[in-house]
Amino acid sequence: MKALSSAPHRRLNALTGEWVLVSPHRTQRPWLGQKEAGSNEKPPTHDEKCYLCPGNARMGGERNPDYVGPFVFNNDFSALLPQQTGSSASPGEGLFRYEEVAGECRVICFSPRHDLTLPDLSLQEIRQVIDTWAGQTEELGRKYRWVQIFENKGAIMGCSNPHPHGQVWASSFIPNEPAKEDVQQRRYYEREGRTLLSDYAEREMVDRERIVVENADWLAVVPYWAVWPFETLLLPKVPVRRLPDLDEARRLSLAKILKAMLSGYDQLFETSFPYSMGWHGAPYGDEPGEHWHVHAHFYPPLLRSASVKKFMVGYELLAEAQRDLAAETAAARLREACGS
Amino acid sequence: MKALSSAPHRRLNALTGEWVLVSPHRTQRPWLGQKEAGSNEKPPTHDEKCYLCPGNARMGGERNPDYVGPFVFNNDFSALLPQQTGSSASPGEGLFRYEEVAGECRVICFSPRHDLTLPDLSLQEIRQVIDTWAGQTEELGRKYRWVQIFENKGAIMGCSNPHPHGQVWASSFIPNEPAKEDVQQRRYYEREGRTLLSDYAEREMVDRERIVVENADWLAVVPYWAVWPFETLLLPKVPVRRLPDLDEARRLSLAKILKAMLSGYDQLFETSFPYSMGWHGAPYGDEPGEHWHVHAHFYPPLLRSASVKKFMVGYELLAEAQRDLAAETAAARLREACGS
Ligand SMILES: O=P(O)(O)O[C@H]1O[C@H](CO)[C@@H](O)[C@H](O)[C@H]1O
Ligand SMILES: O=P(O)(O)O[C@H]1O[C@H](CO)[C@@H](O)[C@H](O)[C@H]1O
Repeated sequence: MKALSSAPHRRLNALTGEWVLVSPHRTQRPWLGQKEAGSNEKPPTHDEKCYLCPGNARMGGERNPDYVGPFVFNNDFSALLPQQTGSSASPGEGLFRYEEVAGECRVICFSPRHDLTLPDLSLQEIRQVIDTWAGQTEELGRKYRWVQIFENKGAIMGCSNPHPHGQVWASSFIPNEPAKEDVQQRRYYEREGRTLLSDYAEREMVDRERIVVENADWLAVVPYWAVWPFETLLLPKVPVRRLPDLDEARRLSLAKILKAMLSGYDQLFETSFPYSMGWHGAPYGDEPGEHWHVHAHFYPPLLRSASVKKFMVGYELLAEAQRDLAAETAAARLREACGS
Repeated sequence: MKALSSAPHRRLNALTGEWVLVSPHRTQRPWLGQKEAGSNEKPPTHDEKCYLCPGNARMGGERNPDYVGPFVFNNDFSALLPQQTGSSASPGEGLFRYEEVAGECRVICFSPRHDLTLPDLSLQEIRQVIDTWAGQTEELGRKYRWVQIFENKGAIMGCSNPHPHGQVWASSFIPNEPAKEDVQQRRYYEREGRTLLSDYAEREMVDRERIVVENADWLAVVPYWAVWPFETLLLPKVPVRRLPDLDEARRLSLAKILKAMLSGYDQLFETSFPYSMGWHGAPYGDEPGEHWHVHAHFYPPLLRSASVKKFMVGYELLAEAQRDLAAETAAARLREACGS
């Protein structure tokens, strides 16, 4: 696999069935383009003007309680609405197909503290966030087929408020990305009788070159098919279908690995590392979903420093995702930043 | 279709087979997040430090000729390289599949003038750019299966130099996005005996509500399945497979519609409108590609003003593209900006 770290090639994303173009020699390219504004100001512990801080008024007018642990509320500007009733899939016609959809969008404040991020929290507090993710998934899974837990972190990722928070968007339909993963995981399971990601994890534990950090239960790797420069895939070493299925021990070890890898991200460019992250687990509905293996994707945009990001633009939008750094190189740097 | 402009729904992209979540009621959402830096400085007609201006030295050391029309050169930091020989598809194994690839990347300067953009050029000059796109497609199509013509415009789209220019990346493989369009167009053609986009264009010419601008040969619409707020699809009204197949008359009418629609974009938020655009036409290779209908996609990121863009982040990356503005509303605004 020598050539894979220097010559241009494509890799197949086994989870989605899509390719990524890898051009490792491009890392030499000088960057003359846009620089992102750094944000090294330290926010206050409580911000009078923050609509997520305890006791403050939200944009919809409601007032937040004096919460102490994670706090969940309905998104005041939800992209999905529960109103619609049953009529679900109205196929529209021919080239103009559409579907009515139903869903709910919520916001999860991770902590009452305005100035902290996930890795700044104690293991106990991170554990509470994990329990909230699992609880929301379970509750919304009773009504909807898909529950998307995610976090946009940093202004560069469209996050409009530094107060540590994530979101949940639950929907009556299975969105594009998990639908692709469903197909690929199902095919693999039917053929091999094992989840795709348990076999993948096993291979990564032998190869070791893409591991960022691990513990007894969890593995964080820069996946072989990573698109974003320092993308990571976080997964349990043995198959677990969904977040609510995680036992006590695995929730605690998840808190530990999250703290380790997110602290590593922050080390890498000495900045509070921006990213979008989210969880994928078995959809709800009629099927047992044995082919699913729960996992989180972290998609951070930074490429060379706190101010130079990877632009997913012309070629990427029109043709195919492209990266300038081999996954193995990125993993080595992140591993070092994690001190593991 | 009343409900389609107010209630959340999904629409199917007939060209790719993927869905987009549409939440038209979200346009009311206040924006408290990152604002993009405006760039209302007017650049000089010739910039001593620009590596694309005539007579200047490039980063690789070479000097540009004193060109007068469009000027094409090899990208000094190509993501694809011609070196590799024939061995093409080496499937790798199992979950770790890869392919060796070959290709070439070039830069196309649209004009010697540093301070102009495509719509500022005369019809004759735009026509020369079109001829260059067609010529490059034809030339590189003799060696490669796919020729991706594209332009990243504006710092916000990762463009590192305001000098008007686009790129060509030719590759031994058909990238993800055109591969999806190939499947969908082929299926349609086999079933209906007509190209998907000629039927689509016909319907749009009856409906009219998504038309931005048109002339005898060309149609620009905000497609029914648009993802980006002011995305447009530009296509010939009758099937043409590839850019090199366009006759004299269609090249001139293309220059005209490009000038009209790009001037409209610039009017919309009174700013030089950033976007990524690119052409898709029949791949080269063994097949005739009768199912293909050449077209250009324009993906502009701006949402509400010159400084507020749409972020394609958490939900979009992890689940599914989402938009806050119905395609029909966007088309009406763009149509007005084009004065058509
Ligand atoms: O080659 P350029 O113009 O410097 O680079 C730009 O366009 C490329 C093709 O879309 C992208 O891969 C880069 O991220 C972007 O910065
Ligand atoms: O709802 P928010 O956090 O204001 O909005 C942010 O996340 C959403 C979900 O990824 C995106 O659709 C928006 O573009 C982004 O600005």
